[in-house]
Amino acid sequence: MKPDLSHEITLTPAFHDLDPMDIVWHGNYVKYLEVARCALLQKYGYDYLQMRESGYAWPIVHMHLKYTGMVVYGQAFKVRAEITEWENRLRIDYLVTDAATGKRLNKAYTIQVALEIVTREMQYVCPQILWDKLGVQP
Amino acid sequence: MKPDLSHEITLTPAFHDLDPMDIVWHGNYVKYLEVARCALLQKYGYDYLQMRESGYAWPIVHMHLKYTGMVVYGQAFKVRAEITEWENRLRIDYLVTDAATGKRLNKAYTIQVALEIVTREMQYVCPQILWDKLGVQP
Amino acid sequence: MKPDLSHEITLTPAFHDLDPMDIVWHGNYVKYLEVARCALLQKYGYDYLQMRESGYAWPIVHMHLKYTGMVVYGQAFKVRAEITEWENRLRIDYLVTDAATGKRLNKAYTIQVALEIVTREMQYVCPQILWDKLGVQP
Amino acid sequence: MKPDLSHEITLTPAFHDLDPMDIVWHGNYVKYLEVARCALLQKYGYDYLQMRESGYAWPIVHMHLKYTGMVVYGQAFKVRAEITEWENRLRIDYLVTDAATGKRLNKAYTIQVALEIVTREMQYVCPQILWDKLGVQP
Repeated sequence: MKPDLSHEITLTPAFHDLDPMDIVWHGNYVKYLEVARCALLQKYGYDYLQMRESGYAWPIVHMHLKYTGMVVYGQAFKVRAEITEWENRLRIDYLVTDAATGKRLNKAYTIQVALEIVTREMQYVCPQILWDKLGVQP
Repeated sequence: MKPDLSHEITLTPAFHDLDPMDIVWHGNYVKYLEVARCALLQKYGYDYLQMRESGYAWPIVHMHLKYTGMVVYGQAFKVRAEITEWENRLRIDYLVTDAATGKRLNKAYTIQVALEIVTREMQYVCPQILWDKLGVQP
Repeated sequence: MKPDLSHEITLTPAFHDLDPMDIVWHGNYVKYLEVARCALLQKYGYDYLQMRESGYAWPIVHMHLKYTGMVVYGQAFKVRAEITEWENRLRIDYLVTDAATGKRLNKAYTIQVALEIVTREMQYVCPQILWDKLGVQP
Repeated sequence: MKPDLSHEITLTPAFHDLDPMDIVWHGNYVKYLEVARCALLQKYGYDYLQMRESGYAWPIVHMHLKYTGMVVYGQAFKVRAEITEWENRLRIDYLVTDAATGKRLNKAYTIQVALEIVTREMQYVCPQILWDKLGVQP
């Protein structure tokens, strides 16, 4: 059975997130995804500080975003993040929805790989520490 | 014959673009792509201000980035942007390379669609003004 | 008697707020001040959207920040914002403190003036709408 | 005689620097100041990388900006940075002007102090390396 490795947060845009169209600038969604990703990884005790302690950095190697709606000032939205791959790379899928109506605003994913900090070498298999933290088997 | 609708700029990262790994934070590439895209569209007289004058906004609806290298402080890099679709949507492909060695650092694309500002309606075919500006046929 | 026109929020830094020193980049405090200022103005029903409706923009004309501490990843901090002038210009004073210890991290102020949107003219006296919203006398 | 420790750069705003008022968001000037400061310090061989090598970080402890004009998309502007104190702290004064007309847009200063990286201790006198690099006497 596939484990549930997901987490959801609710955000509202800051004024400085808006562009001249009076909507959130498209690049700022990358920040929202990161906030949701960090909250998710924190839940499993493997956020930025623990990653570094474990000897690995986890750079983003792929990022895809599909925009289907816009966010205006004052509009609350949810970002759901779910880990969907953990064997050779860490894939996280995201769904951004309007908090009031549930309307889909953005669908995205990111892919990270482990990079050993000391050697600066990419790992082609995720390190054991990730599986231990998530409580999964490769 | 396919027209050459490309442009290349050279940039260096700002200190505030760096993250704790001492490399450019992955989300900042979205800014570099935008700077290259705007420079390209300016060449054809159809950047943000002319878009607005023409009655259309061009929101990003898809964005994909593939990271194959890192950028450190002081490292010059090139961003090449090329328009590869203009019929129903505006697709731009990007290639980020190290300015000194030519090593590939990032490969990306963005897709934009025309949105009529007055009606807020998405256009399923690009407006004539885009083709006129680019000097292309749909 | 001077009215209490203050509000306090609690924040934690995002990973993308950090710089290579592994602390929050100094420029990001400007964002935190804005989030606190907007929360404060929202409390009085005079945030960005209501400002615009009232016919005025309120550009920042002065900004001063004094840094006395650093913020690291995972460190919760409070931002207290208080309106201290409202006659001819809107001055807001800020105090950023560590949420756990109360240690002062930053002391700042911003000054805004009313700009009539239609005429683009600076107002040398704050408009009545500000005083009505805040429940104060000039 | 006071040495001339100044440098000037010319910039144009990126689209993502604009806010809903269609002008550069006030917080982005902090980025422009930093770009000018780094270019100035690079001229003297004492930018971020050399600072780190010398064993010191130079955090900003004071920052003041006074806005007297606005920057719109496509508007070139100059940022002049000048070192005006170097004995106990590093003070840099900035002047932002419209590139075409010379109109003053912003006047600012930043103050940095040396922080020994190993001990994390603030220095109450600037280290000798700064004076050597700048070619000045304390």
